[in-house]
Amino acid sequence: MAERGIEVLLVTDPANINYLSGYDAWSFYVHQMLVIVIDEPQPIWIGRNQDANGAKVTTWLSEENIIPYPDYYIHSTINHPMEFIAGKLKQIGHGKRYVGVEMDNYYFSAKAYEQLKKHLCYATFKDAGLLVNYVRIVKSDQEIEYMRRAGKIAEAAMKRGIENVRTDKRECDAAANIYYQIVSGTEQFGGDYPAIAPLLPTGENTSSPHLTWTDRSFQHGDSVIIELAGCYKRYHVPLARTISVGAPNKELKRITPIVVEGLNEVLESVKPGKTCGDLEAVWRKCLQKHGIEKESRLGYSVGLNYPPDWGEHTASIRDGDHTILRPNMTFHLIPGLWFDNYGIEISETFRVTEKGCETFTNFPRDLIVQDPFSFNKQDGKIS
Amino acid sequence: MAERGIEVLLVTDPANINYLSGYDAWSFYVHQMLVIVIDEPQPIWIGRNQDANGAKVTTWLSEENIIPYPDYYIHSTINHPMEFIAGKLKQIGHGKRYVGVEMDNYYFSAKAYEQLKKHLCYATFKDAGLLVNYVRIVKSDQEIEYMRRAGKIAEAAMKRGIENVRTDKRECDAAANIYYQIVSGTEQFGGDYPAIAPLLPTGENTSSPHLTWTDRSFQHGDSVIIELAGCYKRYHVPLARTISVGAPNKELKRITPIVVEGLNEVLESVKPGKTCGDLEAVWRKCLQKHGIEKESRLGYSVGLNYPPDWGEHTASIRDGDHTILRPNMTFHLIPGLWFDNYGIEISETFRVTEKGCETFTNFPRDLIVQDPFSFNKQDGKIS
Repeated sequence: MAERGIEVLLVTDPANINYLSGYDAWSFYVHQMLVIVIDEPQPIWIGRNQDANGAKVTTWLSEENIIPYPDYYIHSTINHPMEFIAGKLKQIGHGKRYVGVEMDNYYFSAKAYEQLKKHLCYATFKDAGLLVNYVRIVKSDQEIEYMRRAGKIAEAAMKRGIENVRTDKRECDAAANIYYQIVSGTEQFGGDYPAIAPLLPTGENTSSPHLTWTDRSFQHGDSVIIELAGCYKRYHVPLARTISVGAPNKELKRITPIVVEGLNEVLESVKPGKTCGDLEAVWRKCLQKHGIEKESRLGYSVGLNYPPDWGEHTASIRDGDHTILRPNMTFHLIPGLWFDNYGIEISETFRVTEKGCETFTNFPRDLIVQDPFSFNKQDGKIS
Repeated sequence: MAERGIEVLLVTDPANINYLSGYDAWSFYVHQMLVIVIDEPQPIWIGRNQDANGAKVTTWLSEENIIPYPDYYIHSTINHPMEFIAGKLKQIGHGKRYVGVEMDNYYFSAKAYEQLKKHLCYATFKDAGLLVNYVRIVKSDQEIEYMRRAGKIAEAAMKRGIENVRTDKRECDAAANIYYQIVSGTEQFGGDYPAIAPLLPTGENTSSPHLTWTDRSFQHGDSVIIELAGCYKRYHVPLARTISVGAPNKELKRITPIVVEGLNEVLESVKPGKTCGDLEAVWRKCLQKHGIEKESRLGYSVGLNYPPDWGEHTASIRDGDHTILRPNMTFHLIPGLWFDNYGIEISETFRVTEKGCETFTNFPRDLIVQDPFSFNKQDGKIS
């Protein structure tokens, strides 16, 4: 904050609010914020009245730093919560300071900014976008432990998902089983809701990575992409695999070994001191060898998050990203390839170590070929 | 648009995009929009390159109206998608028109607006917030049919949730079962992901409605609130119930009949021509009779939506809302009461009919008392 000339930081990203205060509730669909004042020892939580008890329960803040606003500010055409918040900030002496706001966050709308500027007309606003996110980019050992647990959940969820990709099941049943496992977790620890729903494009729709499921039954010959994340205390470990119901088609047969080779080469090349761009170059070179060009980025920093995204919006594994790898940075490496009528995703989430990297999950790094008649051999029960 | 003096409407709310074009994918975590030009027959979808195939699959738009932007605009500190979008709008002749934007939507950030203003410096911007949402407020018969299906899913999910609130289960296991049922749906039709995770505050945490679950096991004497929604083709029917594991405590015993009485009286009073405020007055009068004052709103318009909220942000059932009830308006009526260390929620989602209202679910409208030893009698299996 000092380096950026910010005296009062208004944090609206729910992951940043959680990181700084512990606050955890599905209340981010209304305006709320954490106020960090550079010369004050404790942040201030300002949110909806009915969420103040949740702030008392989940944060380390003292009660006088939890400030609720009345319900008539909610989804109103007359009152806006930022008017209340601006009033509070003026009241406690911050009306004329340098105020940082997270300009490109989902939970800081254009109107929120306009209202703040209107009601804090003597303040000077600065874009503090990603300021806290960049603090989050290197994880503590405790955070890594949370991600290890998320990794265990991701493995179990992928296993259960694949078991349910079979011709006596509908796509929605496979998705339901994945969700069950993600939320239930393991016997040792429970899971949390992921920031993105399990993605499950099937058949030609594998050409489009962000489609979810339908209630169509799987067919012999289908290819299916499952992208999911295990989540523990809001920390995510994403994992993607591609499944063929029965023998794979010739496109998948051709492309799979290339993707696996590229993925392995990138993982082997990870080392502190290299840049994110260096990793992308390894992948690109591998693809070029096979005559393929990939347009989209290869991965991104991942960890603590809330819907609608588990990515941290800081470092990306792509050409031109000069972020230098440091131990305990964590990335989702997802070398997806999407063509006109099919696609493939095989991904790993990894931690940068002192000498290289380690993945959070241990799952066959290959195309999964599912016996279309496997349902005869399984009872399909979960309890 | 004509009434508001808008020539070009930039729709960023994913529910509005879906309503107008059919587009359905979990891609709203990157900037995207649907452009409605007042003198053009078809909208234009602009989004990320890897989502363009999804637009081809899910919308009714012709291919030339699907415009992808390159991946180097994604989560970049250098490039912003709104710069690309502004360039396109200028290129097709809309650089100097009256442009409507959804100012208070999650997916129209402060920076998105700043970028648009910068790169469309001859356009005149107007707040078109809730313009499409208000079109959505009265449902078609087809939409009502979708909500009926969502209602069936909500009933089944509530039933399964309650069955799993028992002392040999953890909160996360109950949540997992709820999610399973919501996503799997019924045998006749599959479910969709809800815009809000199942909420499951327990014990003293029932004082805070937006807490989710932990991996603590339920205890004899716990009270538990379950708030969930069934979802079918993105249409939601929310439902909330309060459960007592074993005999209810004296607070719940006292408050439950009051909430049920108020809820019933409000439902009986629904009639086209009345206002949302009229409904709230019925509830308030009932509470006053029992010496209780409630601060928060009593309900809201509900239907088609995406995370993070299933509410439509238009009409609210509260004092001062003059929205006149019309047939096929749909509301979640949730007379929650939250005190310092406990709370209660018993809700219904209803449709305004020609003469009154009908609820989308048929579930005991009362406190649910769960036998703490019920696990002896149940096998708890799902398949």
